Amino acid sequence: MNSNKNCQWRIARRPSGNVVHEDFEYHENEIPKIENGQILLKTLYLNLAPVMRMYMSGKSIAGEAALNIGDVIHGRGVGEVIESNHSDYKVGDIIQGQMGWQTYKATSVTNSEKFRKVPDAGVPYSIGLSLFGMTGFSAYFGFFSSGKPKKEDTVVISGAAGGVGSIVVQLAKTLGCKVIGVAGGVEKCGFLEDLGCDIALDYKTGDIASKIKEVTPNGIDLYFDNVGGEILSACLDNLAQNSRIVLCGSISEYISVEPYGLTNYTNLRKTNSTMQGFFIYNHMDDLDEAEKKLKNWVSSGAVKPIEYIFDGFLSMPDALASLYNGKNYGVALCRVSPGPYDL
Amino acid sequence: MNSNKNCQWRIARRPSGNVVHEDFEYHENEIPKIENGQILLKTLYLNLAPVMRMYMSGKSIAGEAALNIGDVIHGRGVGEVIESNHSDYKVGDIIQGQMGWQTYKATSVTNSEKFRKVPDAGVPYSIGLSLFGMTGFSAYFGFFSSGKPKKEDTVVISGAAGGVGSIVVQLAKTLGCKVIGVAGGVEKCGFLEDLGCDIALDYKTGDIASKIKEVTPNGIDLYFDNVGGEILSACLDNLAQNSRIVLCGSISEYISVEPYGLTNYTNLRKTNSTMQGFFIYNHMDDLDEAEKKLKNWVSSGAVKPIEYIFDGFLSMPDALASLYNGKNYGVALCRVSPGPYDL
Repeated sequence: MNSNKNCQWRIARRPSGNVVHEDFEYHENEIPKIENGQILLKTLYLNLAPVMRMYMSGKSIAGEAALNIGDVIHGRGVGEVIESNHSDYKVGDIIQGQMGWQTYKATSVTNSEKFRKVPDAGVPYSIGLSLFGMTGFSAYFGFFSSGKPKKEDTVVISGAAGGVGSIVVQLAKTLGCKVIGVAGGVEKCGFLEDLGCDIALDYKTGDIASKIKEVTPNGIDLYFDNVGGEILSACLDNLAQNSRIVLCGSISEYISVEPYGLTNYTNLRKTNSTMQGFFIYNHMDDLDEAEKKLKNWVSSGAVKPIEYIFDGFLSMPDALASLYNGKNYGVALCRVSPGPYDL
Repeated sequence: MNSNKNCQWRIARRPSGNVVHEDFEYHENEIPKIENGQILLKTLYLNLAPVMRMYMSGKSIAGEAALNIGDVIHGRGVGEVIESNHSDYKVGDIIQGQMGWQTYKATSVTNSEKFRKVPDAGVPYSIGLSLFGMTGFSAYFGFFSSGKPKKEDTVVISGAAGGVGSIVVQLAKTLGCKVIGVAGGVEKCGFLEDLGCDIALDYKTGDIASKIKEVTPNGIDLYFDNVGGEILSACLDNLAQNSRIVLCGSISEYISVEPYGLTNYTNLRKTNSTMQGFFIYNHMDDLDEAEKKLKNWVSSGAVKPIEYIFDGFLSMPDALASLYNGKNYGVALCRVSPGPYDL
C-alpha cells in the first residue's frame, strides 16, 4: 500500500450471504487535484457498519446513491483538510462526512455528503464517527425525541453492546432509568455491566423471551430496538401501559432472507403504546444541539465513546465481514491514518 | 316475552366459531327491587359488538370481568331511570353504561359500570351508544389525539362503514382531509361515498394492496386501522414520511385462529412513522370535552350518528351472529324499548 497514492476499495461483485474477499477490488490511483471551491481530505478514520453490505448489493439507502460494480464503496469517515480552495475550510480542519472507502478525497463539499466539523474534545477524532457522528446523534434523538424517557422508566435496549446501543445505555443511566441491556454472549454481557446496565441479558443462551419477562415485572416503559424480530416480539409481550418502542435498526434483517412476522403488534393497542420508526436524517437540522449536549457529557465523564478499532486500510474487507459475526463492541471503525490525540 | 319481567340472555356454552342459538339461554326473572343508594334502570337500547363473542368465550377484556356459563352477557346499553334512591339520579334521566343483556337493572352505579348521562340532542337516545358513546369517543380521541391529523393529510380508514370507522370518516371530512374508506362490498362502498369519502375501496374484489397503492400516490399520512392484518400490511407499504397509524381495532382477529404475521413493520423506520395503540379507557377523564365537540357537530349537521338497528330484545343472538358476516353499517344496536324521540 502506497501512502502517496489514493488507495480505494471498490465493489468487485454483489455479495451473496456474508461478504468475502472476492467481493472487493483494491485500487491505487493518483491523489486527486483540487479545483476552485474544493478541498482535499486525507482519510483518518472510516466507519464500518452492517448497512454497507446493502450498499454493495446495489441498494439505495439513507439517501445514498445505488452503487454499480466497480464503484468505490460508500462509507462515512473522518478526514483532515490538507489543501483548501474553499473559504469555509482551512488546512488542519478535521471534518466528518461521506468519504467512501478511500484514503484521499477531493470535494466541493456538497449537501449530500453531509460534512460537518468534528469538535476538539481532547480525544482522538474518531469520536466524529462515534459520539459526535451519526451513531451518537441516532442514540441521542432516538432515545430523547422518539423514546420520551422518564427517570423512573424501565428501559430495554437490544444490540446494547453495539454502536448506537452502547451510547443509549449510557444516556439512559445518565437520566436515572432502570436499564436492561440485551446482547449476545457472556463477554458482551460483562461489558454491559461495566458500562452501567442494571441487568445484562444474553440472548444466545436460554429463552430470551422468558428472561425479559422475568426481569420486567412491572412491564417495559421504553424498548430501544436495534435488532427487530424475536426480541422485539418478546418486548411487545411485556409492555407497560403507555410505553414506547423506538425502531432504530434491525441488523438481523440485513442478512436473513425471510423477514420476521410480528403477530403480537396488537399488544400496542392493549397497552396504549407507540411503536415509532427512527431515522437520523430527519434530525439533520438539530445536530448542533445534540453535539453540544454530548460534548458536555464527555467532558464530565458521564458518557464515553465506545469504539472498536481495526487498524489499517487494507483490513477493511475483513473488518466488515467480522461485523456480521457479532463479536465487536460499540462503533466499529478503521484507523486509516492516525490523527491528533491518537497514540 | 313478558314486559313485567326482567328478561335476560345468558351464556349457555362457550361459542366455537361464530355464535349460534345454542350458545344462548333465555331467562325471565322478577324485576329487581332497589335498595338504598340504588337506581332501577329500564333498558331502552343495547349495543352489539364483535367483542361480545370474546366475553362469551370467558375472556376478560377492557376491564370487564370474565364470564362463567350461566352469567348474563356483558353489554353497554342506554337505560331510563324508572326508580331512584340515589341523590345523583332522578326518574326520567337517560344514562348509558354497563347494562348487560337484560331488560332491567338495579345498580348502585359503580365506577366499573362507567355510567354517564346521555345529553338531549333532539334525536333518539340510541345516540348514547353511537356518537355520544364509547364508539363516538373512540373515533374522536383515536383520530384527533392519536392520529394528530392535518388538513392536507391523506387519511385511509379501514372498517370505514363500521361503528367507529363511519364516524372517523365524517371527522376527517370535517377537518378537510382527503379520505379513503375501505369496506367490504359494493353497497358499503356506495354508503361510504354518500357519507363523504373521496374514494371508497372494496377489499372483497381485486387486490386491495394494489388499490391502496394506486390511490395514494403521495403516500398515506394517517391510517386509522379497525381491522388489522392484510390491510394494515398494505398501508405500511405505502406510508408517507412522518405518518401515523392508529390501531383501534382488529375485528378479523376476533374470529381467525392464526394471528397475522406483520413482516413490513420496519417501514415505520424508513418513513419515520408511528404506530400507536388506542384504547378508549385511557381517555375516560376527557369524555366531556369529546361529547361537547361531537354535540356541536351534530347540531350543525356536520356529523351524524350512523346506527344499524335491530328491533326487539329477542333478536339479540341473531343480531350478534350477523355482525361477523359484515353486513351491517355504523354502530349495531338493539332497540329493546322505544325511548324519547323514537318513532
